[in-house]
Amino acid sequence: MENGSSSLSSVPSNPLLKDELDIVIPTIRNLDFLEMWRPFFQPYHLIIVQDGDPSKIIRVPDGFDYELYNRNDINRILGSKASCISFKDSACRCFGYMISKKKYIFTIDDDCFVAKDPSGKEINALEQHIKNLLSPSTPFFFNTLYDPYHEGADFVRGYPFSLREGVPTAVSHGLWLNIPDYDAPTQLVKPLERNTRYVDAVLTVPKGTLFPMCGMNLAFNREVIGPAMYFGLMGDGQPIGRYDDMWAGWCMKVICDHLGLGVKTGLPYIWHSKASNPFVNLKKEYKGIYWQEELIPFFQTVTLPKECTTVQKCYLELSKQVKAKLGKVDDYFNKLTDAMVTWIEAWDELNPSVNAGTAAARKPNGAAK
Amino acid sequence: MENGSSSLSSVPSNPLLKDELDIVIPTIRNLDFLEMWRPFFQPYHLIIVQDGDPSKIIRVPDGFDYELYNRNDINRILGSKASCISFKDSACRCFGYMISKKKYIFTIDDDCFVAKDPSGKEINALEQHIKNLLSPSTPFFFNTLYDPYHEGADFVRGYPFSLREGVPTAVSHGLWLNIPDYDAPTQLVKPLERNTRYVDAVLTVPKGTLFPMCGMNLAFNREVIGPAMYFGLMGDGQPIGRYDDMWAGWCMKVICDHLGLGVKTGLPYIWHSKASNPFVNLKKEYKGIYWQEELIPFFQTVTLPKECTTVQKCYLELSKQVKAKLGKVDDYFNKLTDAMVTWIEAWDELNPSVNAGTAAARKPNGAAK
Repeated sequence: MENGSSSLSSVPSNPLLKDELDIVIPTIRNLDFLEMWRPFFQPYHLIIVQDGDPSKIIRVPDGFDYELYNRNDINRILGSKASCISFKDSACRCFGYMISKKKYIFTIDDDCFVAKDPSGKEINALEQHIKNLLSPSTPFFFNTLYDPYHEGADFVRGYPFSLREGVPTAVSHGLWLNIPDYDAPTQLVKPLERNTRYVDAVLTVPKGTLFPMCGMNLAFNREVIGPAMYFGLMGDGQPIGRYDDMWAGWCMKVICDHLGLGVKTGLPYIWHSKASNPFVNLKKEYKGIYWQEELIPFFQTVTLPKECTTVQKCYLELSKQVKAKLGKVDDYFNKLTDAMVTWIEAWDELNPSVNAGTAAARKPNGAAK
Repeated sequence: MENGSSSLSSVPSNPLLKDELDIVIPTIRNLDFLEMWRPFFQPYHLIIVQDGDPSKIIRVPDGFDYELYNRNDINRILGSKASCISFKDSACRCFGYMISKKKYIFTIDDDCFVAKDPSGKEINALEQHIKNLLSPSTPFFFNTLYDPYHEGADFVRGYPFSLREGVPTAVSHGLWLNIPDYDAPTQLVKPLERNTRYVDAVLTVPKGTLFPMCGMNLAFNREVIGPAMYFGLMGDGQPIGRYDDMWAGWCMKVICDHLGLGVKTGLPYIWHSKASNPFVNLKKEYKGIYWQEELIPFFQTVTLPKECTTVQKCYLELSKQVKAKLGKVDDYFNKLTDAMVTWIEAWDELNPSVNAGTAAARKPNGAAK
């Protein structure tokens, strides 16, 4: 692994989970944004999923350890099952989740930079995500002082003692300073709104509560919830976009609730540098905005039978219920259901055993090591 | 109304809801703590509920507009129904909720002082509570940027548009810097722990989620939820204490969820000055800590029939279910159930019409106006 950065002095001396976490980045451009993340990301392995034209060369700054997959690689590796991976949409990132062999995933967009906390200190987003994932969640009862496992905090009076052990954390959802993650209508109405409010909290999204999961700054335990993190069919040839992470979030949350896993949101913040074009976004979103009004009641009431004891079983059961209940909303959901099944098949093919620590070597295109 | 304070310069020029809100304070001592609150509280009317020995004279700083009720007043006003009001416990504060004729209540403990925000500015807790109460809640879906109605914030991408109107807010639960609201075991284990973390957020406790409601710094819409804010039987002659606000919180939350009302927690902070004695607290709490393990599953699964269309109906139905399900936990819950019924009878007697803006004059002891 190359190693030539002058900013290495700020690299944490003992990066957490260095050999157990992959950073997944979907992109269509040179990854200059990594320069700013160098002190925090350089110790980790990157999985870059190149979207769009596979003949384009994506430049990765020197010194990073990475593997890169373009559409040709995805087609070669997955064969006919590649149909479940979106094209011309950042939803393609979920291929990186599938191809990884690590226990944890952190995924970040290439327009996200290092944010500063109110004291002016640069935020090590990855470290905070890891802390979130390594400490339990508390989905069954709300703690008013937020994360009870944080230093200086605890469970407050009236919190049942039997619930204080918490449950394993599956997902850590981080937030964004500067450009908030708004939909197109809100972007159009509030073009100048910036998020300047630093909320110093991490909290568990309670059981039974859905939330809008954004894929911009997100980490999860791949071993525990990976197969549920499918970002759906978006982009080229599909009637909607910008609902990839939302779809994954709803499916994931329902399955976490069923399996007794936790989902956290709050810290860490990243600096989201630029707003995407609201007119383009509106075109991608408008069907989703409409359909969502039927999707949310579905996800709010869906229940999984107790025979569903693995994420895969839960996901396949969910796909059946999606077909039965949402197929009539639009034929798109029948296609999506098929893709959900294909996704699980492809996942199991690439991850033959749950405990496969180091699976057979794969030969991605452009891998640096 | 007397008016002699020199710190009036910091009084907000146009105090919100000045004629629609009462501040309820339970106490056993002189109310010197009000000096610090003068700029914020002086425009409002106070209802002081004197606990313990009624012959003791409670001194109220000059310039405050107040009425004061001691045990003799409570007995005289409620007659035999006074049995539902706790004695030698701050649970007696709920008498103030009942006797008030205003639309909103703010209640605060007499060991709570004005906190400062991270910029060093004194926090007008009451103003923040009022803002919380006057803006809607969002119990059906979690907004990752917290209160979407706050200036500079909104609903994020993926938040269903049909849910963006929100629902009326019934309760605003504020937090505490310095001494956190811990139970006796946690106090004993962490005697030096102080809450220094200022979390700049207000959020809705999602539907179906219970939380530990603390009565130290609490506001609510009395017209909308008042009859559910009964603080139970605690203190003198009762087997437990320190579960008064918790009990109210569980009952209130179940009823708010049923009626489609919102509950917020987070800002504002007050400065909680001193920890109560953990040994004394342990004695008050230990049965509650044990019973709670059965109470929480009860409240998590209780459902109210749709015929329960008012808070009173909900509360009486809840009392029946408490008797049926919790009576066997301890005979205390049979007594408590009877008191819940008495509370509603007393409430309706003092508040004969929901819309009674100015009811018949009452003659409390020591009223300043």
